[in-house]
Amino acid sequence: MSIEQDYRPGLEGVIASETSLSFLDVDAEEIVIRGYDLIELAEEVSYLDVVGLLLDGKLPSHLERQAIEKDLKENADIPEAVMTILKALPKETHAMDALRTGISALAGFDSELDDRSKEANRHKAIRLLAKVPAVVANSYHLKMGRPPVEPRKDLSYSANFIYMITGTEPSESEVQAFDQSLMVYSEHEMPNSTFAARVIASTQSDIYGALTGSVASLKGTLHGGANEAVMKMLLEAGTVDQIEPLIMKKLQNKERIMGFGHRVYMKKMDPRAQLMKQALLKLAEEKGRHDLYEMCEIGEDVMRREKGLYPNLDYYAAPVYYLLNIPIDLYTPVFLAARTVGISAHVIEQHENNRLFRPRIRYTGPRNLHP
Amino acid sequence: MSIEQDYRPGLEGVIASETSLSFLDVDAEEIVIRGYDLIELAEEVSYLDVVGLLLDGKLPSHLERQAIEKDLKENADIPEAVMTILKALPKETHAMDALRTGISALAGFDSELDDRSKEANRHKAIRLLAKVPAVVANSYHLKMGRPPVEPRKDLSYSANFIYMITGTEPSESEVQAFDQSLMVYSEHEMPNSTFAARVIASTQSDIYGALTGSVASLKGTLHGGANEAVMKMLLEAGTVDQIEPLIMKKLQNKERIMGFGHRVYMKKMDPRAQLMKQALLKLAEEKGRHDLYEMCEIGEDVMRREKGLYPNLDYYAAPVYYLLNIPIDLYTPVFLAARTVGISAHVIEQHENNRLFRPRIRYTGPRNLHP
Ligand SMILES: CC(C)(COP(=O)(O)OP(=O)(O)OC[C@H]1O[C@@H](n2cnc3c(N)ncnc32)[C@H](O)[C@@H]1OP(=O)(O)O)[C@@H](O)C(=O)NCCC(=O)NCCS
Ligand SMILES: CC(C)(COP(=O)(O)OP(=O)(O)OC[C@H]1O[C@@H](n2cnc3c(N)ncnc32)[C@H](O)[C@@H]1OP(=O)(O)O)[C@@H](O)C(=O)NCCC(=O)NCCS
Repeated sequence: MSIEQDYRPGLEGVIASETSLSFLDVDAEEIVIRGYDLIELAEEVSYLDVVGLLLDGKLPSHLERQAIEKDLKENADIPEAVMTILKALPKETHAMDALRTGISALAGFDSELDDRSKEANRHKAIRLLAKVPAVVANSYHLKMGRPPVEPRKDLSYSANFIYMITGTEPSESEVQAFDQSLMVYSEHEMPNSTFAARVIASTQSDIYGALTGSVASLKGTLHGGANEAVMKMLLEAGTVDQIEPLIMKKLQNKERIMGFGHRVYMKKMDPRAQLMKQALLKLAEEKGRHDLYEMCEIGEDVMRREKGLYPNLDYYAAPVYYLLNIPIDLYTPVFLAARTVGISAHVIEQHENNRLFRPRIRYTGPRNLHP
Repeated sequence: MSIEQDYRPGLEGVIASETSLSFLDVDAEEIVIRGYDLIELAEEVSYLDVVGLLLDGKLPSHLERQAIEKDLKENADIPEAVMTILKALPKETHAMDALRTGISALAGFDSELDDRSKEANRHKAIRLLAKVPAVVANSYHLKMGRPPVEPRKDLSYSANFIYMITGTEPSESEVQAFDQSLMVYSEHEMPNSTFAARVIASTQSDIYGALTGSVASLKGTLHGGANEAVMKMLLEAGTVDQIEPLIMKKLQNKERIMGFGHRVYMKKMDPRAQLMKQALLKLAEEKGRHDLYEMCEIGEDVMRREKGLYPNLDYYAAPVYYLLNIPIDLYTPVFLAARTVGISAHVIEQHENNRLFRPRIRYTGPRNLHP
């Protein structure tokens, strides 16, 4: 077989790694996370269980889960110097760029930075998971000229995360919807941001650097940036009767409609989107915003009819975050926070069985020139 | 052809992109840069010509080169806020992590950040090229508790870069060796750091984010980090008679010897190493350090005899930087600074003809578990 003939742009369908972490079984319509169906997990356990499952290879016992929770609380504060750094960023800084700078800066505070053993990598993953919510929330508060917020250690991981962003203690059903969104965002085989992290980690570089690369990747509008674009479109439409004309106009202008399509699920609905759709219905009814749910459904119908495309997770996560009063600028940072555990688990796996990523190219330029 | 059968760890031999930028023609033993032989370029033109060639597709005329030089000088200062950020980093911060944080922070100051047109991307590339030397040098001075250094606009790009690091105006032959090292580091097809940048840029993420990922990648000891490890080994040996026993001991301990081997050139000497070897000989003679050159040659012989492995660029760039009085911590940051132009050109190319990188995996975990 000639490699030349086998060039697949974007590495579509190419096997880039072996992993025991997750797998999109498109035929069975299942997102497999260490053997479990992600949707089943999201319905039956909570985010910290998935954290344990991804980092340690099995669902934690009650005691193990408590230990994870304690670890996360003990590591939740971020150094004063990182606050100084976030404060020094110009007001125009994109929230993902602030998050990237904050995570990058945190590296210098980790005394196990260069230790790539599984144990040390797990410690670093816990520290990152603990601190990323505080970086997400405070980069926003500082940008808005508000004082930073301290983590509330009497709250659960998910409740504290919402509290740090909104300044208000969330209701039980709000926490549930948010916790479920963290689970469905936690891990998803080999999307671009996870791939970027594994590529970087394969030079023997550390987990902070790998995660920095993931933040940069996830910022792109073809990837994590989509959830923010979805919400902007829903707000642009504004009312139930305006969503169809808006989408039709965009399609006529040959624009991509964010929140639709997926490299892997092209022909089916993303099962995570289905779950978030249910969560949206529940929240929308509680908050008297059934119109928002309706708008989303109409958009879904229009896109299936016009393009044969189905919603992806970002399409339904966006209105859920909107009803949770999360500022739109933070949707992608929250996605990154939720995915931190999946990315960390991939870096741990990469370091356990490493081969440097170093592909080749097909050269299309001139030859035999001389200066 | 089944994809499953075709899994190549590290994507070895897999074509990941088309590019008109460069190509390692292993059979012809030529590194092709937009049609030119890199070694011929490094012997006949200077770094800013290669910058023009990579960014604009052809060697610049005298006037075009002057315009590039002017542009770089006008953009060489870094914002005060970035100094504040570098100063806030803890003293333990690795120089590559400081550089990563500095580049990440610079994004917020670029008003064309989200414009992915070729023109805007070129402006951003020039700004980065102009500012990266100041970030490299000042992250080090601030870490050492020294005041930051301002760029000297009366000096050439390469002379100013050395001056900012060492505080001393370099001699002509020092500038020449350094400028040549920047050329040979400038671009090299698809190493891990360039691949990481293209992967990130393919989400439509910006050039600052892509470069941040490259810094993280280049930090790894299997990649850019090798030049620092080489120098530490040469210093550990210390004298001409100690290098052979040291390498033999390391090989017995099954350690990798940094600065040897390459995914693509496994069976030949990297032509860039050959050129840097000549530069080293010249500098070593001028500075009365012929012993350093001899040590390197002995190491080269031992590795060829024992492992059939040849030196890569990092092996000979390290002692050159040592003789230029560049602190070892800055060898990899200087590599990144030199490669910024190649990485930028790859991002521009990726944005011009984009497809999202999103490969698949081979799942090796369990199935059908239930919570
Ligand atoms: C996710 C995505 C990048 C995957 O796409 P891909 O596998 O790279 O497929 P392509 O980009 O080659 O698209 C295939 C075709 O479908 C069309 N298409 C894909 N997604 C589309 C969308 N959201 N809106 C309109 N058209 C779309 C493309 O225009 C293309 O049509 P063409 O062949 O006529 O040019 C793509 O669906 C997309 O851009 N979606 C919107 C962004 C988004 O929601 N991202 C979050 C993903 S979790
Ligand atoms: C650059 C490098 C990662 C490319 O290697 P690769 O294509 O991934 O090849 P592998 O790592 O699979 O190595 C192949 C074999 O050569 C050996 N080898 C490769 N480089 C070696 C080195 N520098 N010292 C000792 N042994 C080496 C490996 O141990 C392996 O032997 P094995 O098959 O008995 O295990 C590798 O040569 C290396 O680690 N070099 C040192 C780091 C360095 O100088 N990097 C800068 C590159 S510009």
